[in-house]
Amino acid sequence: MSTLEIPVLIARKRDGEALGREELLAFVGAYVAGEVDDAQMAAFLMAGVIRGFSRDEAVTLTEALLRSGDRIDLGGLRGPTVDKHSTGGVGDTTTLIVGPLLAAAGCQVAKLSGRGLGHTGGTLDKLESIPGLRVDLGADELEAQVERIGLAVAAATQDLVPADKRLYALRDVTATVASPALIASSVMSKKLAGGAQHVLLDVKAGDGAFMESVPEAHDLAQLCVEIGEAHGRRTGALVTDMSQPLGDAIGNALEVGTAVEVLQGERGGRLRDLSLALAAGLLELTGVEPGEASDRVADLLDRGAALDNFREFVAAQGGDTSVAEEPWDVLPRAPIVAEWRPGAGSVRGFACRRLGELAALLGAGRQRQGDTLDPAVGLEVLPRIGDMVRDGEVVARVHARTDAAAERVLAELSTAVMIGAHPAESVELIHEQVGLSTR
Amino acid sequence: MSTLEIPVLIARKRDGEALGREELLAFVGAYVAGEVDDAQMAAFLMAGVIRGFSRDEAVTLTEALLRSGDRIDLGGLRGPTVDKHSTGGVGDTTTLIVGPLLAAAGCQVAKLSGRGLGHTGGTLDKLESIPGLRVDLGADELEAQVERIGLAVAAATQDLVPADKRLYALRDVTATVASPALIASSVMSKKLAGGAQHVLLDVKAGDGAFMESVPEAHDLAQLCVEIGEAHGRRTGALVTDMSQPLGDAIGNALEVGTAVEVLQGERGGRLRDLSLALAAGLLELTGVEPGEASDRVADLLDRGAALDNFREFVAAQGGDTSVAEEPWDVLPRAPIVAEWRPGAGSVRGFACRRLGELAALLGAGRQRQGDTLDPAVGLEVLPRIGDMVRDGEVVARVHARTDAAAERVLAELSTAVMIGAHPAESVELIHEQVGLSTR
Repeated sequence: MSTLEIPVLIARKRDGEALGREELLAFVGAYVAGEVDDAQMAAFLMAGVIRGFSRDEAVTLTEALLRSGDRIDLGGLRGPTVDKHSTGGVGDTTTLIVGPLLAAAGCQVAKLSGRGLGHTGGTLDKLESIPGLRVDLGADELEAQVERIGLAVAAATQDLVPADKRLYALRDVTATVASPALIASSVMSKKLAGGAQHVLLDVKAGDGAFMESVPEAHDLAQLCVEIGEAHGRRTGALVTDMSQPLGDAIGNALEVGTAVEVLQGERGGRLRDLSLALAAGLLELTGVEPGEASDRVADLLDRGAALDNFREFVAAQGGDTSVAEEPWDVLPRAPIVAEWRPGAGSVRGFACRRLGELAALLGAGRQRQGDTLDPAVGLEVLPRIGDMVRDGEVVARVHARTDAAAERVLAELSTAVMIGAHPAESVELIHEQVGLSTR
Repeated sequence: MSTLEIPVLIARKRDGEALGREELLAFVGAYVAGEVDDAQMAAFLMAGVIRGFSRDEAVTLTEALLRSGDRIDLGGLRGPTVDKHSTGGVGDTTTLIVGPLLAAAGCQVAKLSGRGLGHTGGTLDKLESIPGLRVDLGADELEAQVERIGLAVAAATQDLVPADKRLYALRDVTATVASPALIASSVMSKKLAGGAQHVLLDVKAGDGAFMESVPEAHDLAQLCVEIGEAHGRRTGALVTDMSQPLGDAIGNALEVGTAVEVLQGERGGRLRDLSLALAAGLLELTGVEPGEASDRVADLLDRGAALDNFREFVAAQGGDTSVAEEPWDVLPRAPIVAEWRPGAGSVRGFACRRLGELAALLGAGRQRQGDTLDPAVGLEVLPRIGDMVRDGEVVARVHARTDAAAERVLAELSTAVMIGAHPAESVELIHEQVGLSTR
């Protein structure tokens, strides 16, 4: 692509044109090659955010990102390869439940995960709160472990979709994050590079998510599914609630302990329900009948097969397997646990993003890339929207390193949990599904 | 401005908000200080190009650019300080006529000019075709010369509105040139930095100009006038035709010679008419009655007072003053002059930008900044839209360095000068005026 063609192409996007496949591949390729500079890419992205990208452009952008790096080849594995991705939420640790469940169901799960930033947690950070567990698996090690026990979770390397990493850093500082096509191509390029043939997206809607409204989340889910299918992967999506925390725990060790309790069959609630729905959805994508898929995953959870796989997985990656039996004895715990009792009323809503930020403030999350985490700290938030709270009832617990930190967060909780006199209606967990049969 | 505020501000422009004065000053100030990078500025500019900038934003952008560098202080001069600016055209050498005319009328003209790029010429390049003439005057030298003879023309230094230079280079490669507010703030920041109290804009409309249509040119003119007045300068504008070359000559020495012939009273036509209108408009801005202003400038031209001032000006800047008597003996001349006789017909239109590009191809203009010019070469284009051409009549002359260059341009002329069987209507020279009394 010549230096003279670059501004012409940016101008066409500025004027609302959809660009052709070869043009878009050439433009992103030129960015990767250093012929299009960050300023030109930023202008292009801003034009696209405002004018919109077509579905075909989103498919091509995904292809262009994918071309920038390595791809994991899972073609040598025997079972159906599956992957799930959440667009990021608060108190969402479904991966630790869905992964073992699917492995127990005979699927092969090679999961490449990231670290948390801002108000959302990252699977790698959570897993690393298990003493001894390592996530720096090489590609061969990853594949061998999946072949042997059905599940491995590793850090994505720098060579996996490097253009996405550069673009994401650029979008973050240039206010060009909020585009369905850019979000979808970023998500899907990483899923496609990850190699699984069956992909399920959990697209969150609500204050704690990228997409605040259900229609926006639906459009993003639809686009992700179209991109995946256009690239030859069986792809589906659930649009799920993120107007409140998914599980009770927000914080790394707290979330692992909570997930283990679900795997042990000792904890119900929305975290369990969504984990079962995601696992069933993925089984359905591999060809299992919808009703049968739901029954099978519930059965695997109930009879401890998923917990068994989780134990094998922890062992394979060097972690202390007693976390599967007595999580709270093994996981790091904060010295201070302060209870929040706001008085009687009805839970009317959450500032869900703010809850994630408060947990990060305690040390459970990062303000900046590279910040060190405290695995022990975090929040427990017990009721959900529509629940009644009695006078003196504990609504939240703050797990803190110091009294001062606990006091500070306690004082802020009333800005993040809205309790009022009048009852509120509960909120659906799963708003809709895309590319799956209606349940 | 903190690094966290920068994307928030870009996002507000992305979403179509007008930014406040302090915010915009802080943002551009942070760019000048290196805290906002080129990618962030490019995203901001693209958002502004698509969403538009308000009038107040344009005024503030001008102020922000102005703050980035030095300002010329003309406060010590005795007469009214005046400046005119053209948005750039083909065959437009009015500065060489208007400057001496206004100096002869008692005004003080300290003109900072630029070099040509692409299809438009630059006043400095034209002046340098006069043997000996230098344009590298320092600020003190400039002011002393204006004080003494009323006129000086010098190269703008790097310290005059440096933010505009950086922004212009960025806009050029990111397809963010086409914004009235960005064009107007760029133009007006340089005029304000130049220090004159009375400013007249010549905003071109047509194929050879930034703004192709008269309504677009009107809006740009209006905005420039509002910016100037908001900054305390008496400001006016003419919207003039650039669907065809202004003077007959396109090329540096050819344009100087043509301007001298106008000053000598030996050449009429649109170049003379527009020069008189611009000079009268500026006199009017200084407080002279409109009718009286027109009469006075015509009289000064007719009785040779402007030519006398031109001679003084050339002498003061070290040039050969005999250019004022016998321009064609003094100025460099091309060895090849080829005539174009396209046959009988009516002149229906011009690809005016293409004519400028053909002159640049001969060596009269630059493809890139830093290219060396040939002062002698260029084109003469004799008729205007609506004129009849007889069979065998010379319509254009190509002044070239080599036969090959002449042949190449001769072969292209029919793509730039449209001659047809049916007569066309002539085009108004001055479409409208802004901030001046109706003539």
